[in-house]
Amino acid sequence: MTQSLPDRLTAQMTFLMEADRLKSVNRASRLASGARFENSAEHSWHVALFALTLAEQAPEGCDIGRVIAMLLLHDLVEIDAGDAPVFGAHDGAAMEAAERAAADRIFGLLPADQGAAFRALWDEFEANQTPEAQFAKSLDRFVPPNLNIANDGGSWKDYGVGWDTFESRVGAKIRNGAPGLWDWIAPRARAVIERLAR
Amino acid sequence: MTQSLPDRLTAQMTFLMEADRLKSVNRASRLASGARFENSAEHSWHVALFALTLAEQAPEGCDIGRVIAMLLLHDLVEIDAGDAPVFGAHDGAAMEAAERAAADRIFGLLPADQGAAFRALWDEFEANQTPEAQFAKSLDRFVPPNLNIANDGGSWKDYGVGWDTFESRVGAKIRNGAPGLWDWIAPRARAVIERLAR
Repeated sequence: MTQSLPDRLTAQMTFLMEADRLKSVNRASRLASGARFENSAEHSWHVALFALTLAEQAPEGCDIGRVIAMLLLHDLVEIDAGDAPVFGAHDGAAMEAAERAAADRIFGLLPADQGAAFRALWDEFEANQTPEAQFAKSLDRFVPPNLNIANDGGSWKDYGVGWDTFESRVGAKIRNGAPGLWDWIAPRARAVIERLAR
Repeated sequence: MTQSLPDRLTAQMTFLMEADRLKSVNRASRLASGARFENSAEHSWHVALFALTLAEQAPEGCDIGRVIAMLLLHDLVEIDAGDAPVFGAHDGAAMEAAERAAADRIFGLLPADQGAAFRALWDEFEANQTPEAQFAKSLDRFVPPNLNIANDGGSWKDYGVGWDTFESRVGAKIRNGAPGLWDWIAPRARAVIERLAR
């Protein structure tokens, strides 16, 4: 049974208006100015703009349009599951289950074919195996340290993050999909993190 | 003279961190919940997600990747020029001049080749002549009425907008690049606008 066109569009609009709630999910990172915490919707725009601008840093053969699509979708699950700060303590398995349930519900609002296509992109991002997913995940990890540097410590200060923790939880993922960006950020991040620790 | 790679990346990062300021530019439209005004960064994400989801509404031969790129960039000039509410009174020529000056400055932060490419995309969006620009512009006009419907009037209430004003300032642009979306929204918008006028 195929949906008639207005029904299809109405389902798409239900999804798009539900997505609006991502503007009310706060993250652990602050704006560059430090004025407030950023939300996951504006973060999603910012990281997609990073992908567009830094496309030449992507691995050979990486389709940047697919990277941007993944980044536009990647945080929608937080509408139900919330944001899990990278330096926070949380139950990984419980979080993963909550995010999968959220993906079922939210992508399930779409017409079935499109819901399956978006879900596949989100699954691919989470699995972090393809060049597109690895570059997208690297950018997602690369943005917040730049905000922390700009606002003099941000979430590093809040969570008392040392260099080793940053290198293992954040650096490894950045290096994996975008080694050139890791080379660029590592000394800049280290200078701030080590100054905060003194 | 070509830039060395780290200089190129440093210029790109200057642009991307300047872009962060778009998160602090408020618009005339509120979140679907009505809780607060939305900002231009989260709006840019939302409208890019509309493009990804509603791609099948685009004119024949429209490259949706270019539409999304345009939408990620389209409001950056507001960092300097501010948002001009569609129902507000403003000096069109002065606003256009301010936005062009903003585009010169902001895209000018990028390496010259990339700054020119992004500027060309923004100019194309503004000129509203290609299928990609027309679809992008239609979506940019299509999102806010959906928010207004969700929060029972929003900017229509604030600006005392009647049906004729809505149809000429917003409807004409939606219909131009996405007639199927105009057919969908027109009766829904009209019901709310006419109820508010009673």
